[in-house]
Amino acid sequence: MENTSTMEIKVGIMGYGNLGRGVECALKNAPDMRLAAVFTRRSPENMKILTPGVGVYRAEEAEGMTDALDVLILCGGSATDLPVQTPKYARLFNAVDSFDTHARIPAHFAAVDAAAREGGKTALISCGWDPGMFSVNRLYAGSVLPDGKDYTFWGKGVSQGHSDAIRRIDGVLNARQYTVPIESALEAARSGKNPSLTVREKHKRECFVVAEEGADRARIEREIKTMPNYFDEYDTIVHFITEEELKRDHGGIPHGGFVIRTGKTGKNGENSHVIEYSLKLDSNPEFTSSVLVACARAVHRLNAEGNVGCKTLFDVPPAYLSPLSAEVLRRTLL
Amino acid sequence: MENTSTMEIKVGIMGYGNLGRGVECALKNAPDMRLAAVFTRRSPENMKILTPGVGVYRAEEAEGMTDALDVLILCGGSATDLPVQTPKYARLFNAVDSFDTHARIPAHFAAVDAAAREGGKTALISCGWDPGMFSVNRLYAGSVLPDGKDYTFWGKGVSQGHSDAIRRIDGVLNARQYTVPIESALEAARSGKNPSLTVREKHKRECFVVAEEGADRARIEREIKTMPNYFDEYDTIVHFITEEELKRDHGGIPHGGFVIRTGKTGKNGENSHVIEYSLKLDSNPEFTSSVLVACARAVHRLNAEGNVGCKTLFDVPPAYLSPLSAEVLRRTLL
Repeated sequence: MENTSTMEIKVGIMGYGNLGRGVECALKNAPDMRLAAVFTRRSPENMKILTPGVGVYRAEEAEGMTDALDVLILCGGSATDLPVQTPKYARLFNAVDSFDTHARIPAHFAAVDAAAREGGKTALISCGWDPGMFSVNRLYAGSVLPDGKDYTFWGKGVSQGHSDAIRRIDGVLNARQYTVPIESALEAARSGKNPSLTVREKHKRECFVVAEEGADRARIEREIKTMPNYFDEYDTIVHFITEEELKRDHGGIPHGGFVIRTGKTGKNGENSHVIEYSLKLDSNPEFTSSVLVACARAVHRLNAEGNVGCKTLFDVPPAYLSPLSAEVLRRTLL
Repeated sequence: MENTSTMEIKVGIMGYGNLGRGVECALKNAPDMRLAAVFTRRSPENMKILTPGVGVYRAEEAEGMTDALDVLILCGGSATDLPVQTPKYARLFNAVDSFDTHARIPAHFAAVDAAAREGGKTALISCGWDPGMFSVNRLYAGSVLPDGKDYTFWGKGVSQGHSDAIRRIDGVLNARQYTVPIESALEAARSGKNPSLTVREKHKRECFVVAEEGADRARIEREIKTMPNYFDEYDTIVHFITEEELKRDHGGIPHGGFVIRTGKTGKNGENSHVIEYSLKLDSNPEFTSSVLVACARAVHRLNAEGNVGCKTLFDVPPAYLSPLSAEVLRRTLL
């Protein structure tokens, strides 16, 4: 592949953690894109990236490199990084992020939209799987079956937030928490009977905990199970294991889930339908990165058409995510 | 609901069979649309429709009613009706169809595109579930996981074409054929091992046949199982039943299927992912009708924006299928 073609979309990565490295890997499978720069808050001198010949820069240098990039992919976290970074850089670059704090999306959208319009740029926010591919599936399903009901289940997968919460308990050295959808609730959702499912009925929480030697395990287990917001509304299972077992059996970051919509059609709603979308992911950050890269392609095209401001996947024609031409897509995928 | 609001999208139905009746029912769940006219090749005088106060007209009258409709939904068949009707009416109306002969989509697209551009109208073709919702899912999944493989399975569901083929056999009074995906093939597709699956391994065919009294059932069964293109490449099961049993147990038109993509990510493709989309439909035509109605909303909006010519669901931002505002969609579904 010719790496210097001016036709290729030049992509920058802001933040080189799990997500940033995933974007770098995903770009290798994008024939129409290439990695042009990586920005980091660490010391660029001490950082090695996977792609030969690509420069690593201090985050502050990005502002001076607007001509070197077509799209900047923001790979920070939703808690503190993205609320600042995406509005900041959306004024200077076409930008993509995976902002995933659902309740704060309207405020984030407004801030990014104002910045992008000011700079004549296009931004695409919340491009992961939830929000992201799950949201798109909720939208299609609800539009096709308006007389119906949605259910979203998450897991089986690692929740970083819940794992962190356990690690903050006195006497805990390390922990891994899995969110697990409950099979009977999945079946009830698919049944079309529109059941009302409580938080406890939909998911359970399974925790693998490494405790300090001599720590009071009964207390730790009690503190986990009664922790407000995180665990008290769920049935929670706690396993104590060694650090070696944790490393060996729980080193991955798998995740996934289900979006199910059931709905009725006909003269008197006599026919039922079930639409189900599911993901089973070995690596949560790498799948999110793969969505980000497809979205970078779309944002570049939207901006080339003069469609500026903040967008979400709801606003993007699906064809814009693909490197294939409209004619090839119609012939091979329709 | 105010039925005379000029804000409502006025929809016409061309063809009042299973699909047309399904569109009529689906429109009742669309707060922003109303049925304005039904066109038929039968005698309008002898036809009763479900919606009070809506006129039924001869198909030829449509051409004189361009001002009365915002969108015309074409509810004919793909074999002979739509190849003529969609290009004909796409010059006069914003139009939607469910053309589903995959191999002929490029030719159909070209004919409809020329007509729509000539008339300054917008058309959306192949709006059902395959082509349609399945196609969109193949596109999203392939864009996000380019290093992967697609599998589409159909059923369990009634194939009208295969049922008709059995009915043409000497001694057969009636028949119903179900296409059934084979569970072991579904599991192999989900495994991520990229198996190559033969036609016989993916689906089996199950036939319920009403034979004439005294007919040679062994010959009928043999003729079914060896029928070229329809059955000879499949494992086929034949059951002989009575007309009463057929009516009682096989009167519905269920269908559905699965779109599965597995793909790899990471430095060396070390992580696997499975994306699965499935439909389980009580009524194939009513679900297709529900897609057509959502697409009529989109085509009206595309035309209002000056985006003329022929489109497919690949070209439509998902938000255009929904009656909800972009702001409400972001807040509630993202």
